[in-house]
Amino acid sequence: MNDFHHPEYNLKRWVQRCNTRDLTRFAPLHIGDTVIGWVPKDHLSRFREHHTVFGVMDAEVWVQGHLNTPAARTSAVGEVLVEWEKRGWVSGWRDELYRVSTRFDDEPLLLVERAAAQLLGICSYGVHLNGFVQKPEGLWMWIARRAKDRPHYPGYLDHLVAGGLTAGQSAWEVVIRECWEEAGIPESLAQRCRPNGFVTVFMDHYGLIKRDLLFTYDLELPEDFEPENMDGEVEDFELLPIKDVVHLVAETDEIKLNCNLVIIDFFVRYGILTPEHPHYSKIVLGLRAGGCA
Amino acid sequence: MNDFHHPEYNLKRWVQRCNTRDLTRFAPLHIGDTVIGWVPKDHLSRFREHHTVFGVMDAEVWVQGHLNTPAARTSAVGEVLVEWEKRGWVSGWRDELYRVSTRFDDEPLLLVERAAAQLLGICSYGVHLNGFVQKPEGLWMWIARRAKDRPHYPGYLDHLVAGGLTAGQSAWEVVIRECWEEAGIPESLAQRCRPNGFVTVFMDHYGLIKRDLLFTYDLELPEDFEPENMDGEVEDFELLPIKDVVHLVAETDEIKLNCNLVIIDFFVRYGILTPEHPHYSKIVLGLRAGGCA
Repeated sequence: MNDFHHPEYNLKRWVQRCNTRDLTRFAPLHIGDTVIGWVPKDHLSRFREHHTVFGVMDAEVWVQGHLNTPAARTSAVGEVLVEWEKRGWVSGWRDELYRVSTRFDDEPLLLVERAAAQLLGICSYGVHLNGFVQKPEGLWMWIARRAKDRPHYPGYLDHLVAGGLTAGQSAWEVVIRECWEEAGIPESLAQRCRPNGFVTVFMDHYGLIKRDLLFTYDLELPEDFEPENMDGEVEDFELLPIKDVVHLVAETDEIKLNCNLVIIDFFVRYGILTPEHPHYSKIVLGLRAGGCA
Repeated sequence: MNDFHHPEYNLKRWVQRCNTRDLTRFAPLHIGDTVIGWVPKDHLSRFREHHTVFGVMDAEVWVQGHLNTPAARTSAVGEVLVEWEKRGWVSGWRDELYRVSTRFDDEPLLLVERAAAQLLGICSYGVHLNGFVQKPEGLWMWIARRAKDRPHYPGYLDHLVAGGLTAGQSAWEVVIRECWEEAGIPESLAQRCRPNGFVTVFMDHYGLIKRDLLFTYDLELPEDFEPENMDGEVEDFELLPIKDVVHLVAETDEIKLNCNLVIIDFFVRYGILTPEHPHYSKIVLGLRAGGCA
């Protein structure tokens, strides 16, 4: 038992926030019978302009049936997105393709530019790493502060390492690469990363649907390891006692939205949050409440 | 990476089996607007006999509204169950009360005899402990063989420690007590148990609905610790290399049904199963696919 169950600590708000959406404002995006995304009904006129690629009714959008291979869909939808990028409807183009399927395990039905994931309400896949140090007095966790020039969440707190999972890469490859780029963790040490499941997000967020599946990893680091950012994404790193991390998650909005779930998952797995917590089952279920898989 | 991803290994069958049900054969059991259980439609005539306690229609059963406190419901439903026990419809009476609510975190709406949980299709709460040893060559796990005189799953393989969570007990109390009774683990060692979430079951099983929420715990044991059963529930214990446990789960039906999920959850958390496994997302989601919480 510990003092992390203080009634003032509000950890459950993150599972609520990351699983709240009003789908009446969105139209499902289909490929055949499969719903692959959710688009704002306010955007339907955009899709109508490209009738060789998309079919549109009041309450749904679909990729036209003559586009009957992943390659054909990827190419046709990609051309539309290039056009939309020119019109300023897609920002932060990355030249990175995300896989789109109902389930991560399945073969993708198409690939789309990463920057368009929320515009189409498709699921983004990422890897997130909890870097921790086991000191004699307890657990400590490394927290990064994102650089202030980042397009998303500038200056917010983040994991030691995190990255998007683009098509054709394995989660493991991405973890090993990002360990080096984001925190200067050499491969010999990164090989000790341990996958332990995932958390999910399915919410409306600034008028779009945000859906994430974040594969979670832990890495126990030696006390004398100092992370060093290589790619400019991180301003600095701080090693915090776990009770300070609990405080940051429970009582502040300083941590990048979806990272809160990954950190709460760590609290659950390391017994920092226990079944005696008054909202335990709600929190634990909310970590993988779904929306994509 | 490891060789546990052999394509012949079938771990996903357990999440499928524990989440398969045909609810058209069952009627929901209500308290007010809340569904607390599922009863076989074949049993509706039993409920009709007790019209002061239960209301019955073709497709649903409810606890009568005049029973408007948890104490009143517990008493009235309890009297019906005593009657049913005399008629041979409830077997293995335990004199242990289970809490009934939609969510573990909520106040119970009534308490019912443990032996009647499946008869009413209510959620059972339990604690399950993975006892493991970290040897230089890798992880090993303690597996118990249930005594052949057990009413349920005689002779099947089980966790080192497991137990039902009766009303008024905390999960932690039950873990500490069962550690001693089932495996002779002294409290000083049991205090190192680490809670790490839960797994769920929602299936039809021999004509009834089985719903479980099993709080999961890990305990790393010293290499020289030998478990010893105190209460006659366990015939013997065996310490197995983790690859043999993977084999038992994937290729045999020797492990007690719901324990398979708890062990697979351990595989996920310890990186024995990784995102590169062809059914990873299906397996991980299936561990908490719900039904109760």
